[in-house]
Amino acid sequence: VDIDELDTPAVIVDLDVMEKNLTRLATYCREHNLNLRPHTKTHKIPALACMQLEHGAIGITVAKVGEAEVMAACGINDILVAYPIVTPEKALRLAALAERTQISISLDSTEAAEVLSKRAREQGVNFSLLVEVDIGFHRCGVSDEKAAVTLAKTIANLKNVHFSGIMFYPGHMLVKPESQSALLRPVNESLDRTLSALDRAGLSARVVSGGSTPTAYRSREFHGVTEVRPGMYLFNDRNMLGAEVARVSDCALSVLVTVVSNAVSGRAIIDGGSKTFSSDRFLSGDGTGFGLIEEDPQTTFEAMSEEHGHLNVSRSERRYRIGERIRIIPNHVCTTVNMHHQVYGVRGNRVEVVWEVAAQGKLQ
Amino acid sequence: VDIDELDTPAVIVDLDVMEKNLTRLATYCREHNLNLRPHTKTHKIPALACMQLEHGAIGITVAKVGEAEVMAACGINDILVAYPIVTPEKALRLAALAERTQISISLDSTEAAEVLSKRAREQGVNFSLLVEVDIGFHRCGVSDEKAAVTLAKTIANLKNVHFSGIMFYPGHMLVKPESQSALLRPVNESLDRTLSALDRAGLSARVVSGGSTPTAYRSREFHGVTEVRPGMYLFNDRNMLGAEVARVSDCALSVLVTVVSNAVSGRAIIDGGSKTFSSDRFLSGDGTGFGLIEEDPQTTFEAMSEEHGHLNVSRSERRYRIGERIRIIPNHVCTTVNMHHQVYGVRGNRVEVVWEVAAQGKLQ
Repeated sequence: VDIDELDTPAVIVDLDVMEKNLTRLATYCREHNLNLRPHTKTHKIPALACMQLEHGAIGITVAKVGEAEVMAACGINDILVAYPIVTPEKALRLAALAERTQISISLDSTEAAEVLSKRAREQGVNFSLLVEVDIGFHRCGVSDEKAAVTLAKTIANLKNVHFSGIMFYPGHMLVKPESQSALLRPVNESLDRTLSALDRAGLSARVVSGGSTPTAYRSREFHGVTEVRPGMYLFNDRNMLGAEVARVSDCALSVLVTVVSNAVSGRAIIDGGSKTFSSDRFLSGDGTGFGLIEEDPQTTFEAMSEEHGHLNVSRSERRYRIGERIRIIPNHVCTTVNMHHQVYGVRGNRVEVVWEVAAQGKLQ
Repeated sequence: VDIDELDTPAVIVDLDVMEKNLTRLATYCREHNLNLRPHTKTHKIPALACMQLEHGAIGITVAKVGEAEVMAACGINDILVAYPIVTPEKALRLAALAERTQISISLDSTEAAEVLSKRAREQGVNFSLLVEVDIGFHRCGVSDEKAAVTLAKTIANLKNVHFSGIMFYPGHMLVKPESQSALLRPVNESLDRTLSALDRAGLSARVVSGGSTPTAYRSREFHGVTEVRPGMYLFNDRNMLGAEVARVSDCALSVLVTVVSNAVSGRAIIDGGSKTFSSDRFLSGDGTGFGLIEEDPQTTFEAMSEEHGHLNVSRSERRYRIGERIRIIPNHVCTTVNMHHQVYGVRGNRVEVVWEVAAQGKLQ
């Protein structure tokens, strides 16, 4: 099948670019002796997780129990749930998976540790637990080294779980590389304090799990880090371009759309809106726009309805004809892929593979 | 099953409130002699479309061919595709549906009319076509009465399609009722000009399809309107509250979530973010916040990650415990439901029905 034969809207992945991205980060991690544990929330596709393992990943990361179940069903046997699991139902599902899969879970509360220990014991399995530390993003994570040691001790005293280390997420570091350096210093001070305090308490962190795509190629600069969990690096997106951590030639994923209306002056309407791209905003610059039209950057993706994309074509030389197709790099690949049931892997103009987004909609 | 037994996040619909909303608008339409053709993009659930028909709707509206296919497969036999269909593939799929279902389509271009005529002729079926008129939203729609007459004439001269009237969408009228009046005047001037010009050309509009949820109870004030296409009215949402066209007691849909972290001071983190609620913004006031926490309005739903909702609890008296559940009214019900595979219909604390969101992800 040729790309021209695909109906729109359709998510297209350029396999050459994706493979280059997979190889590049795998090489970096190998050279710097870092374990790579990609976050599969970005694609939710088991075949891509397997490809990441073939490129040297030690295991995968997921955000939801449902995602872990989909990935485990495909034979992936080392999964980190980088999300606090606090209810008996979800803990039970993970305990069932732990019979055949190595399951690690991050947490920041005694409640989570106790629920997980109880279910693991009932099921006769073991969980590895990572204490999440807040290093500046202020979402989850214990606030200081004292709280980290307290929670690590609690875990060490519970049955069928063991304290294996710490996890952090530098979600506030989606900024241009020159601004990342200033943010890195307090992160490292926090990591130093936490790791020393754990050492002093006799609870050394075997695993220090950190990282993200925006900071992927600075991973070795995080003190003590043993593994990284980037998600978007295999695709990249407009937000990575905005933060200047990727170039257009590094963007593997785009959305193929069709122009469906040009009746309103200065506008072209495409058959993709918030239910195709998600309504995630652009996180750099003036924050406007919902995607990059690589072939005509004078045209801006200005607004969205659910199924209509509103292009402002008033500054473009190009005339947008009804029925013509264009490709758009979305603001955020993770939420875009999550809108689709299929993703098309292409090489040149050939569709080489169709992937089901198997964990789409697995919210629980 | 009781609500307390549902895993989270879960979309909950209060059946009493929804039935009240269904009845109220059906009564209004009957009293004012308006046909009701609800937009099913809001729920994408055939059983709810059937309930709307039982409440007096004459047929339904959809945004995508895939949605039409799902609804037709459940026996719904009068469907308006309120979206320009411009490609042969999609026109063919609609022609196949038209063998057993009355299919109407809105459009604003000669290209769309020709593609639809060709496929209808090949399949031996007929389409009703509505000329979309831009009455101020500036998305789709011909810009003036001259263009409307030209396109209506084109349709009248094509085989296997007939011109049945006009369609408009007052998407710019999601404002408080007192501000709607000023916007209504230019809309009516545009409608008057268009309808008179069509009359003079001997192409009278049998159908004048308009309306939306924010304007639902002013539908009779739109000149010449014969049918309305509200979507959100059965659920309502925070945007309808913001525009003051619904009260909290009219909101039937909420998302049940669990507090998963309270480690960061002033924060509570819930297990729903942009992949649960969508990242659609609040369209009134200062535009901030991603949902309303009915039971504690002092707490704001301040930010989102994909799977984390960030509540700012610093102004609240309430202490958010890990594992406790809260209900949140989302900014936009249409994009929220689209994130889920199931919706739970509840009466009091009992789950009375589980609906599959059958048209979820039908983007083509």
